[in-house]
Amino acid sequence: MFKFEILHESKKSAARVGKIHTAHGTIDTPNFVAVGTNGTIKALDSATVSEIGLQLMFCNTYHLLLQPGTKIVKEAGGLHHFINRKMPIITDSGGFQVFSLAYGSVADELKSRGTKNSGELVLKINEEGVLFRSYRDGSKFLLTPETSVQAQKDLGADIIIPFDELPPYHIEKEALQLSIARTHRWEQRSLEAHFKDRNGQAMYGVIHGGINLDLRSQSCAFLTKLDFDGYAIGGSMGKTKEEMHSILAHTLPQLPKEKPNHLLGIGDLDSIDKGIALGIDTFDSSYPTKAARHAVALTWQGPLKLTKAENATTFTPIDKNCTCPTCRQFNLAYLHHLFKAKELTALTLATIHNLHFMVEYMAAMREKIAKDLI
Amino acid sequence: MFKFEILHESKKSAARVGKIHTAHGTIDTPNFVAVGTNGTIKALDSATVSEIGLQLMFCNTYHLLLQPGTKIVKEAGGLHHFINRKMPIITDSGGFQVFSLAYGSVADELKSRGTKNSGELVLKINEEGVLFRSYRDGSKFLLTPETSVQAQKDLGADIIIPFDELPPYHIEKEALQLSIARTHRWEQRSLEAHFKDRNGQAMYGVIHGGINLDLRSQSCAFLTKLDFDGYAIGGSMGKTKEEMHSILAHTLPQLPKEKPNHLLGIGDLDSIDKGIALGIDTFDSSYPTKAARHAVALTWQGPLKLTKAENATTFTPIDKNCTCPTCRQFNLAYLHHLFKAKELTALTLATIHNLHFMVEYMAAMREKIAKDLI
Repeated sequence: MFKFEILHESKKSAARVGKIHTAHGTIDTPNFVAVGTNGTIKALDSATVSEIGLQLMFCNTYHLLLQPGTKIVKEAGGLHHFINRKMPIITDSGGFQVFSLAYGSVADELKSRGTKNSGELVLKINEEGVLFRSYRDGSKFLLTPETSVQAQKDLGADIIIPFDELPPYHIEKEALQLSIARTHRWEQRSLEAHFKDRNGQAMYGVIHGGINLDLRSQSCAFLTKLDFDGYAIGGSMGKTKEEMHSILAHTLPQLPKEKPNHLLGIGDLDSIDKGIALGIDTFDSSYPTKAARHAVALTWQGPLKLTKAENATTFTPIDKNCTCPTCRQFNLAYLHHLFKAKELTALTLATIHNLHFMVEYMAAMREKIAKDLI
Repeated sequence: MFKFEILHESKKSAARVGKIHTAHGTIDTPNFVAVGTNGTIKALDSATVSEIGLQLMFCNTYHLLLQPGTKIVKEAGGLHHFINRKMPIITDSGGFQVFSLAYGSVADELKSRGTKNSGELVLKINEEGVLFRSYRDGSKFLLTPETSVQAQKDLGADIIIPFDELPPYHIEKEALQLSIARTHRWEQRSLEAHFKDRNGQAMYGVIHGGINLDLRSQSCAFLTKLDFDGYAIGGSMGKTKEEMHSILAHTLPQLPKEKPNHLLGIGDLDSIDKGIALGIDTFDSSYPTKAARHAVALTWQGPLKLTKAENATTFTPIDKNCTCPTCRQFNLAYLHHLFKAKELTALTLATIHNLHFMVEYMAAMREKIAKDLI
């Protein structure tokens, strides 16, 4: 079922226009993937998300494992049925969140906030996997390549991710090397578990190596020999956009062109622009939806702070050329008011706009690539 | 423009079926009026509210005066334009909130919580009106019959309410008598201000008298001589449903049958049932929308707690015969999950259901009256 089709390769860069075909429909690439951690884009329902035209939604296995539990989602007929989404879904392995509990998040580390207290929730990390406690009710969960894949089978996402280790950002090369070797073994075990019951799902291998280009090459060499349907780029991407750019520029040419690739957790407009030119097909990020909830609307002229004083009397929409339900119906003065009055409706209306903007933005990018302008 | 039409009077009770015609369309009566304090039903947008079929929405002048300010709403072309609502709106005078600041709310008093600290926001109460400070920025506002009506002219609601005094619940008869006399003078001044520029709006007089039936009669006698378009029943309705029932049973026969009436701030199903039989035409209440945000869904079988453990694995909608967007798309297990995961989407989906339920409930009530079953 899963198939990737390249429609156009830019003459100007490594950018390409393509289509990923899944059991739940097509994803035009390059595309933006919004994050619906708990099985909903925050402040929206599935019907609205589909109307906006978001072709791929990212859900987090770690969160769904803890609440409501992947068994319940399976009983509901899978995630698509449970959340009433007809279009494709991608899930991650849970590894990122579990290792963030153990080592603190990358953001914590880069800001030298060190390991979070939540570290005590992780009981054991060994070759088998990770034993941790639910922050919700203290119950124990064992996350291994096999249990992560099983959870993702229960969820039934169209694209799934093998279990990997997220090493800390501040790590010696030797320790990183060991971490990557384990991640490779875990990814291989994940793939084997996946092959036992493909279930119409695709699995993307996750390239690691942190900011070390040699290790990135090693990771590409090892993982591209395995029969993944596509590749995601994970692990630390450095502290700066320049670092990220050089890692991507180094890594992407080592991935098979005929398979789709995904950049994990990065989706600001600047990174999207740069990533597209390097050949990235899909980007997931909570940035546009989180920005909306912080009263920041995305526009072609840059981010617009909805709570800015002058918007109190601006009786025009966020963007008068925008065709989203928010801009068609409401003006900035009303949005300003709703945010000032702390109304939940504000979060919904801003999220609708930002998600619609991302869909339009990616469509425009695909058009540009088709014309070799990128 | 404003016109009230009685289509049927029950042979069994004082209930009647009617239509209130306004510049923004018709309100079938009896009907439920949802509260959108700040110019939005919490967690919904205007388009959704219209789709659900809510014919009359209640907005609070006090809140809109402080944020965004009625001048801004006027500049936007009035409240209908500002919030993009095509259907009728009713606003109150602001009196209820300002006197709640001064004396504490009725609920506070009934629970003997006494005067709230916010009392210090009220600077002066005299024959002219009330001088108070905004809790938002400390700026001063003078609310009088004339400024309240002007604010409601700026908002441009279809039905407006004269400025009145909300006396404390625990008040001696003599003090209550003085309060009512002032309220009557204020209502008369409000009506005179309204007549200077009718602006296509209707004004409902507010009957006071608290729990004293003699004073209720006095209030009816005085106010029904003035040319209001309809009558609202305000002031304290007592501590119990029985007390409320006897006040309404006493008051309603003293109101002109040919004019519509409204019960202020009461809209639980039991009170609606009793009120309809006594001849009430419209009821406003934040109960159904507030209940939704507290995970309580209204059904024909009574309130349903969405977060109840058994709902985690109930793969059927709140009500399988319900035609609301929530019940058509999502089951209880998903709603249970969204509430447990503290997702904003939960609040929206539950509010949609409860508002739709109220619209259906009132339609069923009208049918029953038409058949003389109520």
